Amino acid sequence: MKNTFGNAVSLTIFGESHGPAVGAVLDGLAAGLPVDETAIAAAMDRRRARGDGLSTARTEADEVTFLSGVYRGHTTGTPLTLIIRNQNTRSGDYAKTADLLRPGHADFTAHAKYGGWQDARGGGHFSGRVTAASVAAGALCECVLQNLGIHVYTHIAVCAGVEDAPLSSAAGLVLPQPAPGHFALLDPARETAMQKAIRAAGRDGDSVGGMLETIVTGLPAGIGEPWFDSVESELSHLLFAIPACKGVEFGAGFRFANLRGSEANDPFVLRGGRIETATNRNGGVNGGITNGMPLVVRTVLKPTPSIYKEQHTVDYAARQETTLQIEGRHDPCIVPRAAVVQNTLTAFGLLDLLTVRYGTLAQKNGLPGA
Amino acid sequence: MKNTFGNAVSLTIFGESHGPAVGAVLDGLAAGLPVDETAIAAAMDRRRARGDGLSTARTEADEVTFLSGVYRGHTTGTPLTLIIRNQNTRSGDYAKTADLLRPGHADFTAHAKYGGWQDARGGGHFSGRVTAASVAAGALCECVLQNLGIHVYTHIAVCAGVEDAPLSSAAGLVLPQPAPGHFALLDPARETAMQKAIRAAGRDGDSVGGMLETIVTGLPAGIGEPWFDSVESELSHLLFAIPACKGVEFGAGFRFANLRGSEANDPFVLRGGRIETATNRNGGVNGGITNGMPLVVRTVLKPTPSIYKEQHTVDYAARQETTLQIEGRHDPCIVPRAAVVQNTLTAFGLLDLLTVRYGTLAQKNGLPGA
Amino acid sequence: MKNTFGNAVSLTIFGESHGPAVGAVLDGLAAGLPVDETAIAAAMDRRRARGDGLSTARTEADEVTFLSGVYRGHTTGTPLTLIIRNQNTRSGDYAKTADLLRPGHADFTAHAKYGGWQDARGGGHFSGRVTAASVAAGALCECVLQNLGIHVYTHIAVCAGVEDAPLSSAAGLVLPQPAPGHFALLDPARETAMQKAIRAAGRDGDSVGGMLETIVTGLPAGIGEPWFDSVESELSHLLFAIPACKGVEFGAGFRFANLRGSEANDPFVLRGGRIETATNRNGGVNGGITNGMPLVVRTVLKPTPSIYKEQHTVDYAARQETTLQIEGRHDPCIVPRAAVVQNTLTAFGLLDLLTVRYGTLAQKNGLPGA
Amino acid sequence: MKNTFGNAVSLTIFGESHGPAVGAVLDGLAAGLPVDETAIAAAMDRRRARGDGLSTARTEADEVTFLSGVYRGHTTGTPLTLIIRNQNTRSGDYAKTADLLRPGHADFTAHAKYGGWQDARGGGHFSGRVTAASVAAGALCECVLQNLGIHVYTHIAVCAGVEDAPLSSAAGLVLPQPAPGHFALLDPARETAMQKAIRAAGRDGDSVGGMLETIVTGLPAGIGEPWFDSVESELSHLLFAIPACKGVEFGAGFRFANLRGSEANDPFVLRGGRIETATNRNGGVNGGITNGMPLVVRTVLKPTPSIYKEQHTVDYAARQETTLQIEGRHDPCIVPRAAVVQNTLTAFGLLDLLTVRYGTLAQKNGLPGA
Repeated sequence: MKNTFGNAVSLTIFGESHGPAVGAVLDGLAAGLPVDETAIAAAMDRRRARGDGLSTARTEADEVTFLSGVYRGHTTGTPLTLIIRNQNTRSGDYAKTADLLRPGHADFTAHAKYGGWQDARGGGHFSGRVTAASVAAGALCECVLQNLGIHVYTHIAVCAGVEDAPLSSAAGLVLPQPAPGHFALLDPARETAMQKAIRAAGRDGDSVGGMLETIVTGLPAGIGEPWFDSVESELSHLLFAIPACKGVEFGAGFRFANLRGSEANDPFVLRGGRIETATNRNGGVNGGITNGMPLVVRTVLKPTPSIYKEQHTVDYAARQETTLQIEGRHDPCIVPRAAVVQNTLTAFGLLDLLTVRYGTLAQKNGLPGA
Repeated sequence: MKNTFGNAVSLTIFGESHGPAVGAVLDGLAAGLPVDETAIAAAMDRRRARGDGLSTARTEADEVTFLSGVYRGHTTGTPLTLIIRNQNTRSGDYAKTADLLRPGHADFTAHAKYGGWQDARGGGHFSGRVTAASVAAGALCECVLQNLGIHVYTHIAVCAGVEDAPLSSAAGLVLPQPAPGHFALLDPARETAMQKAIRAAGRDGDSVGGMLETIVTGLPAGIGEPWFDSVESELSHLLFAIPACKGVEFGAGFRFANLRGSEANDPFVLRGGRIETATNRNGGVNGGITNGMPLVVRTVLKPTPSIYKEQHTVDYAARQETTLQIEGRHDPCIVPRAAVVQNTLTAFGLLDLLTVRYGTLAQKNGLPGA
Repeated sequence: MKNTFGNAVSLTIFGESHGPAVGAVLDGLAAGLPVDETAIAAAMDRRRARGDGLSTARTEADEVTFLSGVYRGHTTGTPLTLIIRNQNTRSGDYAKTADLLRPGHADFTAHAKYGGWQDARGGGHFSGRVTAASVAAGALCECVLQNLGIHVYTHIAVCAGVEDAPLSSAAGLVLPQPAPGHFALLDPARETAMQKAIRAAGRDGDSVGGMLETIVTGLPAGIGEPWFDSVESELSHLLFAIPACKGVEFGAGFRFANLRGSEANDPFVLRGGRIETATNRNGGVNGGITNGMPLVVRTVLKPTPSIYKEQHTVDYAARQETTLQIEGRHDPCIVPRAAVVQNTLTAFGLLDLLTVRYGTLAQKNGLPGA
Repeated sequence: MKNTFGNAVSLTIFGESHGPAVGAVLDGLAAGLPVDETAIAAAMDRRRARGDGLSTARTEADEVTFLSGVYRGHTTGTPLTLIIRNQNTRSGDYAKTADLLRPGHADFTAHAKYGGWQDARGGGHFSGRVTAASVAAGALCECVLQNLGIHVYTHIAVCAGVEDAPLSSAAGLVLPQPAPGHFALLDPARETAMQKAIRAAGRDGDSVGGMLETIVTGLPAGIGEPWFDSVESELSHLLFAIPACKGVEFGAGFRFANLRGSEANDPFVLRGGRIETATNRNGGVNGGITNGMPLVVRTVLKPTPSIYKEQHTVDYAARQETTLQIEGRHDPCIVPRAAVVQNTLTAFGLLDLLTVRYGTLAQKNGLPGA
């Protein structure tokens, strides 16, 4: 359904980079869930650009305005709509090169699809700006999960060639969201090196990509609906909606290609009477359903396509080859900011699957409170 | 929607390994499309196990029976239902170890989700047997695409440590489906080595995984619906429904993590008046929309979890740790058979997105034939 | 989604009148629900034609075969597929008049939509035969509701000009399904007159229509999702899938047009500490949500379009006006058989809405059993 | 999907009566469709209350603001979001009686569903105010249809006991939208009597209902997707989202109950080489699919539940019976204003079905422009 996703809880996103606002409609929430505006603002702040040589110089307050579905600080159970006004827009930067197809961007495919009617300013509907809306909506879903004892955490697994500490080093898996202005890392000591490597690429007029890893703890076993609404299908569907995401893997992911079955299976064990697995190569999912172990999913994000090196391209209007020199304000690396997008989209997807799951159970177990 | 997927064309799959049949309902096809039973049978044959030390000894005729939607050799435009009877079932093999949770399988998660009511024989609804239905349905979609000039081809990129030739070696991208009993490889000369490596793992009582790469040629630019029904979101949703699939990547995929933007962007060029890209690192997709270059998607499949080595596990009924020795008939490697599953699911997904796309165009361009 | 409907529980139906089988896939049921084959067979029997001058002479055993989703007499929680083989088909009756468009039927619209590729034998996919599948699936849903204390009952409000007793006469609303071969009536004494009137129309080579009224008791308040998935929207969507249904109304329905607000509102009262309404003109639904009073919905079914009087029509192939004399076997009245279709589709729709409702509640109330 | 509906084109509505705004997201429109703000404003104006004793004294400018999806006066092909600010809100009127359940309203069901967390001011999400958003979105859809030669027209068939002229009197079916401030009537001469009857009810502190009839001309044959997405199922689903709608019928509707088949069938004839029907008792739909004749659908709207007579009810908080005297500003009759809601929802539904239909055709007829 194009810009709407979800079964029991649905998320619709809209907006263009230089239009009046970006926004989201979140439908299917229960009534009476607290809307923690501080937590939402904190997520918005983690996503925010800082103009610090690591991200774009376009910084915005990113204030979230609720148009519906919130009353007296709680959800009403009816569709929750939020918008974030676009304020700091400088369309002039783009007009000069409007006909030059930016490599790696959606300029050409937007032409092919929309025939010139798209709002091309700042990438229009393809801009990462739209993720501000999904972060706000997903941050609310994350709060709902937390109240159910489920915690979602995303760190930068690798960026600009600098790796974070491996997940295996995270004793007890207590993974706090990072402080404002800081990177989400298991080992905060590596932040300096990572930022240095990003800035180096930026100084070269170039950009870098990386990988994000999300860990979810506290999920009960039994979530996910095979075949087509498995945890893996649902989350990958959402995570490929992160701009620049070109790959999604669960557990050992692509490393499974070089393992044998005896190295890939997770033996079952009893821990305090609870069935767990001794290892977690399958990333908490078997047969598309959660097994109660931490869910582990990784994405790869390609380098920001906006670079300041001269590039070969085509002038769409003139139909001739030419060169392009991008101006404007762009992140040399979107990975740190995308971490919060990944975290919140994952929260939304899991809340949807949880809601589906517990609805079905009611058919057999009766209707509580009825 | 659990076992149903698609927007304009929908696929519903059902069945258990040892139940009466597996099957599929394909809805949203146009009327009058030829139903090429030979092409469908050929796809079923490529998926079929051969009992040759490479795949399970459970071999079945896999005859496809149409229950609805086909008349006089063509689609009727109403839901097309097909079933494949289960014939060669030996449930006894499973009964002995019914309570022992097989590592890497869905035994435990099925218990968590279905509370013991699942049909556990042969993996039940989680069995790869269910993919026979999606192959038959998807093979029909593949024929529809071929008539539109769109070709889908999947080869084994790597298996048991043996790599196929790279896609760059496929001059002209004429990629025929493999002959019966042969592996789908760009370089057929590598088949012997790959089969040898698989048999070696099988002799060790172990199993291997691998990677599958799908290439689609002839797709027009403009297919895919951002944000949530992008080509990448739709195809990954489907491809994670391949049993054992633990990762999906497009174009350069996870290799993007180590590239700079200047190495990752595909410069635009003019070729015979048509806008193309000089390279295809983005795998034919920008901003979630096809750009007219070949679409390239890869999956990783973990090794078959059924191995003949003794494994540590838990007896679910007795709630105690124990060891498991799997018997029965299992593939030491499902990668070659999964190639046809990936090929046909991709064909289905693209047919769905094409149908969505050309419906929307009619709003502006008028109603042909009306 | 064409032949699939539902949010948390989905029903897909398929088949043609003279194809191999009609069938249904029901997905989203909990695992472990008893599959009462006796109750399902009883519903099939109530829908069955009897060749008694009231319904078509095409009588079939209508045996329901489960292909998936049932194991050891209970649902498995995976998609439940059932088929009913077509046995008593006499296509010859139709071939003679294949090009003559039958007034009131879908012959012409099928041509317009499917361009001649439709299976026109016996009405093909448009045949009332397809309802056998939805009855079987819906009868199972009805059993699930009964176990939750919710009862669905449909009677013939009026047929062939003969009215049943009004709902207000049904003291205590204990409404048993009718005995085999009998009409569903609040006042069984009216059956003779109703049957006599139907047979009279049949003897004239003509047909009659009527109205069906469904009453649902035991529904908790709070079911239904405004705006678009209200109880009224969801049920009307399903009930218009009853062949010949041309109208749906709730509570006082079209009589509201002539009432004033003071006559239309249902005053609230306390009964045993429970909030009820003194009257039930709104049919148990306010604002699209159940209010705990009996749900009341009525449909109108037009007379069977197959009549034995000569009719004016067009020869589609020859493109000329002509007359048509229908042969074959047809019901002079489908209203009594449609009662069970209405009853079971209503049960399905309510089970879907109940499942949606109780899933949402879990977000706030916690995850039972997790 | 709760507040989202549609297959190829989807409409999401949100908002509360006294919240910041009501709004809609319309997704699935082609790019480059003209956005005729004058036509949209005219529809808003027809829906607007006038404080003239016929409708509520709450009058608002109802200015439509586009937040996304419109650029340079045309659609961009990305989700179109529009909002209408709530300005003239006087919540104080409601606060006095907040705990008294208003008969005929959703007060009690909202409590049952949302547990007290709903925004009850002015009816909250249940308020007719939300229809302003669907009118704006649907008016745009109506323009798209007009460009395809399809015209949608709704008149007040009966209101306050005064009937409009019958459809059969509308020679040539040229049915213009009414002038500002006037009722939509086939026979404008009956407006005075109808308004007088409404005002009479209002003076009694009472309210009246009525029936709306929509006629659609220019629809090609072949639109609608049996079984579950038939024209009748799709439109009824939407029309029951008109507040106060309690019944929907097509063609002869409930009058079919008293007709014989020979009186109900529409004989086929040739008119200028085109196949038509001599009569149109089936309202342009056979087998759920359009047959090229004018589509005719009628709804019944119950009288406005807000009346100024004293009513018996229950105090929800105190759990005791009491009487209620409603204050505030309310329409004695919403039928005239609802006409535009019905017209625009119908336009939206048909645009959705048209888009589905022409997408499917492309599978067989090739990809125009590709």
